[in-house]
Amino acid sequence: MSDQATAREEAGDEPLITALRAGLPAAAVLTDPDVTASYAGDMAGFCPSGTPAAVVLPQTVEQVRHVMRTATELRVPVVPQGARTGLSGAANADDGAIVLSFVKMDRIVEIDPVNRIAVVEPGVVNAALSRAVAAEGLFYPPDPSSWETCTIGGNIGTGSGGLCCVKYGVTAEYVLGLDVVLPDGRLLTTGRRTAKGVAGYDLTRLFVGSEGSLGAVVGATLALKPAPGQQLALAAEFPSAAAACDAICRIMADGHVPSLLELMDRTTVRAVNTLTKMGLPESTEALLLAAYDTPDPAADLAALGALCTAAGATEVVPAADAAESELLLAARRAALPALEAVSGTTMIDDVCVPRSRLGAFLDGVAGIAATYDLTIGTCVHAGDGNTHPNVCFDPADADESARARKSFDAIMALGLELGGTITGEHGVGLLKKEWLAKELGPVGLELQREIKGVFDPLGIMNPGKLF
Amino acid sequence: MSDQATAREEAGDEPLITALRAGLPAAAVLTDPDVTASYAGDMAGFCPSGTPAAVVLPQTVEQVRHVMRTATELRVPVVPQGARTGLSGAANADDGAIVLSFVKMDRIVEIDPVNRIAVVEPGVVNAALSRAVAAEGLFYPPDPSSWETCTIGGNIGTGSGGLCCVKYGVTAEYVLGLDVVLPDGRLLTTGRRTAKGVAGYDLTRLFVGSEGSLGAVVGATLALKPAPGQQLALAAEFPSAAAACDAICRIMADGHVPSLLELMDRTTVRAVNTLTKMGLPESTEALLLAAYDTPDPAADLAALGALCTAAGATEVVPAADAAESELLLAARRAALPALEAVSGTTMIDDVCVPRSRLGAFLDGVAGIAATYDLTIGTCVHAGDGNTHPNVCFDPADADESARARKSFDAIMALGLELGGTITGEHGVGLLKKEWLAKELGPVGLELQREIKGVFDPLGIMNPGKLF
Repeated sequence: MSDQATAREEAGDEPLITALRAGLPAAAVLTDPDVTASYAGDMAGFCPSGTPAAVVLPQTVEQVRHVMRTATELRVPVVPQGARTGLSGAANADDGAIVLSFVKMDRIVEIDPVNRIAVVEPGVVNAALSRAVAAEGLFYPPDPSSWETCTIGGNIGTGSGGLCCVKYGVTAEYVLGLDVVLPDGRLLTTGRRTAKGVAGYDLTRLFVGSEGSLGAVVGATLALKPAPGQQLALAAEFPSAAAACDAICRIMADGHVPSLLELMDRTTVRAVNTLTKMGLPESTEALLLAAYDTPDPAADLAALGALCTAAGATEVVPAADAAESELLLAARRAALPALEAVSGTTMIDDVCVPRSRLGAFLDGVAGIAATYDLTIGTCVHAGDGNTHPNVCFDPADADESARARKSFDAIMALGLELGGTITGEHGVGLLKKEWLAKELGPVGLELQREIKGVFDPLGIMNPGKLF
Repeated sequence: MSDQATAREEAGDEPLITALRAGLPAAAVLTDPDVTASYAGDMAGFCPSGTPAAVVLPQTVEQVRHVMRTATELRVPVVPQGARTGLSGAANADDGAIVLSFVKMDRIVEIDPVNRIAVVEPGVVNAALSRAVAAEGLFYPPDPSSWETCTIGGNIGTGSGGLCCVKYGVTAEYVLGLDVVLPDGRLLTTGRRTAKGVAGYDLTRLFVGSEGSLGAVVGATLALKPAPGQQLALAAEFPSAAAACDAICRIMADGHVPSLLELMDRTTVRAVNTLTKMGLPESTEALLLAAYDTPDPAADLAALGALCTAAGATEVVPAADAAESELLLAARRAALPALEAVSGTTMIDDVCVPRSRLGAFLDGVAGIAATYDLTIGTCVHAGDGNTHPNVCFDPADADESARARKSFDAIMALGLELGGTITGEHGVGLLKKEWLAKELGPVGLELQREIKGVFDPLGIMNPGKLF
């Protein structure tokens, strides 16, 4: 426990706890240190987390307003949380903070097939929403790897992506309107329930990706798509990462719109085989997975496969049916746990570069792995240029951990040098604060800080995140 | 000329003009009152415009920065302008203002098929960009009615839509990054060149639809799509607006994704026939136009047509080929001039409602037309619920003009009552300021004003627009 937290405990958090309990059921205010410790942080590495004074689990908007008014009155930081599956430390608690967990606000309020919208509370799990709308012939596309556990509120806070983005876009594109409790307890409604709308500045979009730093999202109106066709996949094996990146460029320049286009490097393929015994081609230097969900996916995949062959693919294997397609996608979904198993843990990065620079990026990562004597396995949402280099290291090995940390900075610098961004879909949180300042530059950074000040003049909303 | 403008002319604008000319070519600073008067306003009715002190036509970012620094130093309002095709008065000049016209910054800097982006200056005409990217097998979807003359900068300022939005979305969805000159002359770069990115608050989206009230957009990185297939259209004739709206609900609930879905009411159809002699069915109470640009548009249209029949369509006529399709779309494109010809001019409204409320909205508009004894012809981007009631009136008839103005307010109130927004794609400008306040409510309005203050603390950027 940090000195600050110890001091606070000695002084006692009673006024805060008493005030919180005045507007919340007793069971909704957790203060047992063993319990609150389990809410201390998300899944990011290299990010400190403190000891919260309390974890609150509101079930109504009024209860959230009470929490925020209390926080403002007592000048206590508030850290909004979903399922803590984030990868940037954006949900990590500060010492003495109120952790505002939305896991008990998990109702799907409405699903409307004519208007193609869903209205939800922030604690709804992504998979629960996806399945509920699928039952109505609809589709909520954003599918981060953690979709079985992560919440829509967390997805909105982070601006999450997933495998579907190459065709269907990211979370931001599906958020039409929000209900937000501001730090002082005021209720703000942004956006609309309609398909279009340009009434005033787009505050909805300002909240998406704001990592709980402006206010607490307590409700969302989401856009839905009609259910897509059955997805059919293809795997293409390449003798070099450069050839695979050439194929990606040909595919995108040729007007293809696959529903998935993923690249796994040699290290990742081998790690997946070791963990899962899937028998992916060990000889490959890069494995490209593509899928189509169009009326004739086999024909579309055949055209895409021909471009892979032209770019030098040594083998192109279309799945025969949905079951085979699922097997190929399972290999991709196994990539992160497989790489974690290599050395004990991984630090997952999230640099997005222009597609045309993917080859240069992968070359650069190979150089960084050599420089720091590390195993780095890279998966790429190739259609988007969104790379996830996974730096494998043993956290018990101090020297290897230090080299892993250095490689992280080198990867981020490489991404910016190639015209990319430091984060495609994981967010900034604590992990990339210094790098956000570099990406935005001084004018952008100053304006972003001032915008935070408009919503949160006391600086109590998730302080220390983003900048 | 207003008293204020007269006073300014008497006092002389010499210090301003001299300062502007210090950083701009002589030909880029227009002060002849006959010339500057032609830049006074956009195409909105019922919106006052003043007499600008000067119109500047910069050709470089540095020249724009000079204009903005000068405006800040002398505390002179700046009104950014594209082609002045807007319909809300957002580009109308204030007395004594600098009109900052971007029509001479019209270069297409880059078209990149692999990364599917274009980099443009703000004065590029929408049609020029659309044609240039089409030549590379790409597609820039946003297609406002004024696409042959309107500029991309104006589209960004307004958040423009068009006929394609039901499938391809609005301008906002195609703006990846912006270069902006702030009122004090600082240069801000927002967003990215990559397909994804969540680094910090989304300032790009904040500028889209901000109507020049935060800064001057001097460059944009736009997302492109692959060229779609050839569009094939269908017309369906209905015996009532209610039946047509029922068909729209069935089409959307059934998972259709047409590339166009437009509704013209009886008044509009008759006006088009009168103007163009097109011979549309005079007996119709509502005409629905739909199109598909998929691999098999005839099959998709057949399924859509069957839903129209089930909803009571008296006739469903699929176009045989691209030429027939173009004829049907030409009818829709002729709607606005046709309605203008009815009484001399029209006031076009732009209310967007949930699709499921379109029937109630059209009933309400019919009631308003009866109440105020006016002809109102309504076209609807039906797939989006984005309605354009065109109130026909003779501007020389003071009483009719006054009734037209009242009907406008009644239409807006109706839209909000049905869960809609006061503007789907035309923006707020001067025309809908009071209504924006009603739609946003006091908390939203206060925050929007404060956000403006972050970017424009002196309030010189397009003052009096939006709020």
